[in-house]
Amino acid sequence: MKFSAERDVINNALNVVSKAAAVRGIQPVLSNVLIETRNNSEIKLCATDLDISVEMIIPAESSEEGSITLPAKKLTEIISKLPNEKVSFKLEGENNIVEIKCGNSKFDIKGISGSEFPPVEYPESDDFVEVEIDPLLKAIRQTLFATATYDMNNVLSGVFCKIEGNTLEMAALDGNRLARIKEEIENTDNKNFSVIIPSRTLKEFVNVLSGVYDEKVAITVKNGQILFKLTDRYITSRLIEGQYPNYEQLIPTTNSKQAVIDRSKLLASLDRVATMVNERTNIIKMAFNNDSLKITADTPDLGDSCDELAVDYKSDNLDIAFNYRYIQDFLKVIEAEKVIIEMDGSLSGVLYKSENEQDAICLIMPVQLT
Amino acid sequence: MKFSAERDVINNALNVVSKAAAVRGIQPVLSNVLIETRNNSEIKLCATDLDISVEMIIPAESSEEGSITLPAKKLTEIISKLPNEKVSFKLEGENNIVEIKCGNSKFDIKGISGSEFPPVEYPESDDFVEVEIDPLLKAIRQTLFATATYDMNNVLSGVFCKIEGNTLEMAALDGNRLARIKEEIENTDNKNFSVIIPSRTLKEFVNVLSGVYDEKVAITVKNGQILFKLTDRYITSRLIEGQYPNYEQLIPTTNSKQAVIDRSKLLASLDRVATMVNERTNIIKMAFNNDSLKITADTPDLGDSCDELAVDYKSDNLDIAFNYRYIQDFLKVIEAEKVIIEMDGSLSGVLYKSENEQDAICLIMPVQLT
Repeated sequence: MKFSAERDVINNALNVVSKAAAVRGIQPVLSNVLIETRNNSEIKLCATDLDISVEMIIPAESSEEGSITLPAKKLTEIISKLPNEKVSFKLEGENNIVEIKCGNSKFDIKGISGSEFPPVEYPESDDFVEVEIDPLLKAIRQTLFATATYDMNNVLSGVFCKIEGNTLEMAALDGNRLARIKEEIENTDNKNFSVIIPSRTLKEFVNVLSGVYDEKVAITVKNGQILFKLTDRYITSRLIEGQYPNYEQLIPTTNSKQAVIDRSKLLASLDRVATMVNERTNIIKMAFNNDSLKITADTPDLGDSCDELAVDYKSDNLDIAFNYRYIQDFLKVIEAEKVIIEMDGSLSGVLYKSENEQDAICLIMPVQLT
Repeated sequence: MKFSAERDVINNALNVVSKAAAVRGIQPVLSNVLIETRNNSEIKLCATDLDISVEMIIPAESSEEGSITLPAKKLTEIISKLPNEKVSFKLEGENNIVEIKCGNSKFDIKGISGSEFPPVEYPESDDFVEVEIDPLLKAIRQTLFATATYDMNNVLSGVFCKIEGNTLEMAALDGNRLARIKEEIENTDNKNFSVIIPSRTLKEFVNVLSGVYDEKVAITVKNGQILFKLTDRYITSRLIEGQYPNYEQLIPTTNSKQAVIDRSKLLASLDRVATMVNERTNIIKMAFNNDSLKITADTPDLGDSCDELAVDYKSDNLDIAFNYRYIQDFLKVIEAEKVIIEMDGSLSGVLYKSENEQDAICLIMPVQLT
C-alpha cells in the first residue's frame, strides 16, 4: 500500500472517524482506524467499536492499493503535529509497519492487518428519508441533554425520534423532566419511521458533521440499525429496542399561570443564587408575585442567597421549587430572548418554552418541599 | 461592621489573596479570608495557611468598623458572579453572619469571628532591598520549573536566591538538571542576602503581582521569613532552612562542541518526535552531524519517529540522549529566537543557553544508553 494525501484533509478525517474507535477493549483492532485505498484516487478511513461505525472517504493519490489498521489515538496525534504538506504512507512486506513521511519527519508505526478489522455492514440504502441537517441538529441539541444516564440499553438512555409526514419529532426524558421538539421538514417521498437512538450515537453524529457541506442527510432504518449517509461519510449505529413511554400524555395542557422572563437574566440569576445551593439536592425556590420573581437557595452552615427579577406575571402568587440544573440545561440549548414558564400549582409539572416556539418544550417536575 | 466597595476591586483582591488560604485543614478559619475595615476608607483582606500569608488593602467606604472572616472559595465565587456595581457588606449582632448586597442580589454568609484568625507577623521592614519586578519575574520564570517536587522541606524543593551588589542570582536543581540565571539589578544601599524560597511561595508571588502598577518590590529577610512588600499588598512566607548545594562547580566550563538551533523549530521537532517516546523513560536521541540534527524516539510494539533539523554545528559527530521534557521545560521559558547547546561528550553535562544571554543557563545531564 502506497498513497499520499494533504495533511489537513487526513487530520480532519481522523478527527471525525477516530472517535468511533474503542477506547480500550479485548480486541486491539477495535482501537485502530482502518485505512484502505480505493480506485487510486481515494482512501477510506473507518473506525468502529461494534456499536457505532464511522466511515469517511478522502482524496488521496495511491500508487499501490492495499489496507492496514493503525492505532487511532496515536495516528491522530502524529498527524496533528505535522506541518500542512503532503503526507505519504507506505506499507511494505508482511510486518504491518507503515512508514509515514512528511517534510523532514518520518514515523514507523506498527499496525494490525486490515483483514482483522470487523466487516462493517451498512443497511441497504435504497430506502431512505432525506432530512435537512439544520432542523435535525436543532432537535438533537434540544433533546439530548434530557436523556437518562444510567444503563445504556434502557430506552430512556436514548432519544426518541419520529418522522411522520412533514414532521420530525424528537423527545428525551428521565424521571424528572421531558424535552420534546417538533420541527417541520420536507419529506417528499412521505416515508415514516420511529426509533430510539442511543445518546452516544447522536453525539458522534454531531461530531461527524464537522466540516460538512451537505444540506441534507439520508437516513435509513433497517434490522435494528440506523445509517446516516452524507456525501463523503457515513455513521451507522445499533438502535435501542423497546417501547418508548407515551410521553405526550405527560405534557400538561391546562397550566394557567404564565410567566415571561428574559432568558439570559434568568440564567445569570440562577448561576448567582446557586452559589448557596445545597450541593446534595440542587434545590432553588422560586416565588412568583405580581411581575416579580424571587429566587432563593440556602445551605445550612453556609448561608443563603436571594435574587429578584422583573418578570411578566399576572396570576396568583405561586411558590415553587426546582432542581436548578434542569432549568439551566434547557435555557442553555435554546436561543430565544425570552422564555415562557407555564405553571399550575406547586406540585404539578411546569412547561418551559422558547418564546415564539410552542413545539419546543421542556417539562420539569417541581420538588416538593417538606 | 459596614462597608461598601466596587465589585471589580473586591473581585481582583480576592483572586490575589484567596489562593493563600488553606484548601482544607484542621483549622477551619485558615480556609477563610480575613476582612477588616481600616480608617473608614479602606479594607484589609488577608489569607494564610500559616506557611504563606497574603494581604491586600483596597479602597472602601466604611460606616462601621469591624472585622470578620468568610470562606475564601465561596466568597470569591459569589463576588465573581455579581455585576460590576457597588457591593455592600454588613455584619450585625454576634452571629457572624454577613449580609452582602449588590444590585438585586442578596447573600447571607456564615463566617468565623475575626478574633480567631491567626495574627500574621511581618518581619520589620526598615531593612529591605528594593528590586525591580521585571528582572525578578524573569529570574523566577527561568528557574522555578527545575525545582525538585518531592519533600517540601528539602532545600531542592525551593529556589536559591542571592542578592549581592548589583547582581540577582537564582538557581534551582533536581537530580538531573540545573537552571541558573544572573540578572543585573539596582541595589543602591548595597544590602545582600541569600535564601532558599519555597517554590509555592514564588508561584503565589507571581499571582500576587497580577494587576500591580509598582515597578519595584521591597524584600525583607528576617528570622527565617521573607516579606515581599508592594504599595497595596504584601506576601510573606517561611524560608527553607539548610545549606544549598554549591551548584557553580557543577557547571562545565570546557564544553567545546556547540550547536545553534532555532528555538521554535526545535520545540516543534521535540513535540513531534515525542509522539513515539517511551512514556516510562521520555528518552529521545539526538545525533549531531555536520550542520544537521536528527532527533529520534522509539517505543517497542508501537514504532519509532525521526525528525531532521538544519542546525549550525561544525564539531565532530555526536550522539547523545535526553529526557526530552527537560529540554522542553527550558525552551518554553526563554524568549530568544535561537538556543545554544554546548556539549562535550555523550555522558557529560550539556549547557542549554539563550542566544545573547550567557548568564541564563540550563544544565541537563544526558541519559546513558545501554
